[in-house]
Amino acid sequence: MMMQWRNAWIGLLLGTALLGAAPAPNAPPKPQTPGVNDLIASAQPADWRPVAADRLLILTLSGNRRVLIELAPQLAPLNAGNIASLARAGFYDGAHIYRSQDNYVVQMGNEHLKRAIPEGAGATVPGEYLRSGLAGLPFTRLPFADGYAPQTGFTDGFPVGRDPKAGTTWMAHCYGAVGMGRDNDPNSGGTEFYAITGHAPRHLDRNITLFGFVRTGMEHLSVLPRGPAPMGFYAAPEQFTTIESIRLASTLPDAERPLVEVLRTDTALWQRLVNARANRREAWFARPAGFVELCNVAVPTRIVR
Amino acid sequence: MMMQWRNAWIGLLLGTALLGAAPAPNAPPKPQTPGVNDLIASAQPADWRPVAADRLLILTLSGNRRVLIELAPQLAPLNAGNIASLARAGFYDGAHIYRSQDNYVVQMGNEHLKRAIPEGAGATVPGEYLRSGLAGLPFTRLPFADGYAPQTGFTDGFPVGRDPKAGTTWMAHCYGAVGMGRDNDPNSGGTEFYAITGHAPRHLDRNITLFGFVRTGMEHLSVLPRGPAPMGFYAAPEQFTTIESIRLASTLPDAERPLVEVLRTDTALWQRLVNARANRREAWFARPAGFVELCNVAVPTRIVR
Repeated sequence: MMMQWRNAWIGLLLGTALLGAAPAPNAPPKPQTPGVNDLIASAQPADWRPVAADRLLILTLSGNRRVLIELAPQLAPLNAGNIASLARAGFYDGAHIYRSQDNYVVQMGNEHLKRAIPEGAGATVPGEYLRSGLAGLPFTRLPFADGYAPQTGFTDGFPVGRDPKAGTTWMAHCYGAVGMGRDNDPNSGGTEFYAITGHAPRHLDRNITLFGFVRTGMEHLSVLPRGPAPMGFYAAPEQFTTIESIRLASTLPDAERPLVEVLRTDTALWQRLVNARANRREAWFARPAGFVELCNVAVPTRIVR
Repeated sequence: MMMQWRNAWIGLLLGTALLGAAPAPNAPPKPQTPGVNDLIASAQPADWRPVAADRLLILTLSGNRRVLIELAPQLAPLNAGNIASLARAGFYDGAHIYRSQDNYVVQMGNEHLKRAIPEGAGATVPGEYLRSGLAGLPFTRLPFADGYAPQTGFTDGFPVGRDPKAGTTWMAHCYGAVGMGRDNDPNSGGTEFYAITGHAPRHLDRNITLFGFVRTGMEHLSVLPRGPAPMGFYAAPEQFTTIESIRLASTLPDAERPLVEVLRTDTALWQRLVNARANRREAWFARPAGFVELCNVAVPTRIVR
């Protein structure tokens, strides 16, 4: 199992890490209260939620680099549905990542293949910048103020903003969020999509459609060389990264489906974890912040198979 | 001149960008009020500040990849001074980047060379997590609330938090911030340093010493393959990136000194720019946020020579 969790410890442990030596004499003493990693390690099976196979998009880049994206039809049903249809049709096989802008996004799709849109999918899709109606939509509020949204929190493990007066919810542009490109037309482009690879550009929230979130494999997107043309576009096709395929896990034989689990965001453990993230008690910390911003509350994920 | 500024436009312009074609029929109309890029383009010579040569650190990686770091002795005099001394002595030549953790940091230094510390520099340096005393320290406040600090803003182009009651200022862990590693000892390690390559880990603010900021060349650090060992350390020396040299620009002959300029953060133009960042009026935007978070206010930088 692979755990994804950002560790806040910036230290000089290299000797130990690399050589497998005994802990240094100045190894941290056990913290008084459980730290972030302790809490994740304490998670019980019921604290984890498997990603449903019909919501799990498998993006495979050349060299067998695999990025697993959870679709969010509860927030953007038309756009999530459209990309699922395109994946089912093999539409992206052989397509490209043609943009990588530092501290911002990668963008990919059909732009250079100019394939015809398969039956049952749309070349353009209505924009779904936010969802109206809060009923039936799980929401665990983050108990901290946010400048970009009246409330923030998590819906099924997706970072979201919420406006209780307007009755709207929308996914936030955190690192790993996946959205559908558009030009000045308010509708989504329908086929060309992006993933956020830098500091959260939250000013895009409610301005463009986010339809999914990278659960594992961000490191395959975030290291792609930045494109030399304006806005990080590559200057020549030789610079592209080839998409071998995009598949919906549910279309694969059972034995070949990856199984990804996401820590549930509607549990007592989750509340403790948020609290531990906001008030770091590990021995390294001199001053806990007493606060954690939405995009700094990474949701732990693990690949079970 | 190279401009560094993150463009918020996520569109499908590739055909135009790559092929130099005429603007598409749906090209954005001119915005009613100047947008972010218009304002930067309108900057007069006096709106730019050259980085002093004795504060400009030139980090050259193998393959002539160059990263320019502005030191912040006004915030961390001992740590900035120590790394300047080490650079003057050629201490880092042939050293390594030995850690790259996704959405977090790269870390580099002497860990594997185990060189002796040269005369006049320290193997450890007192931690300077914040600076006490506000007098004489320029500060342009950002007119928005922040969860990590009572106030935020800019001091000489560095993103900072400020506590007016305690009379303290500290650099914020935004993308591009450069700091001195430490283990649980509150003092800085003195030689091993890091740069933030992911979403701002602001919970580190006031917990560790930041002494500089990458002004250009972040893309050489941010794309480094992530290390496979825990916390992004590389598992074997073959995975390291070699530091060819670290030099202080003032030690180079005049003609070889790079000249970097940073947009001043104490001008009327700056105020307009912050306002434009918070209230995006470009034609693409459907809903300006009415807010901008500290680490999303990138400070424009250009290489003049």
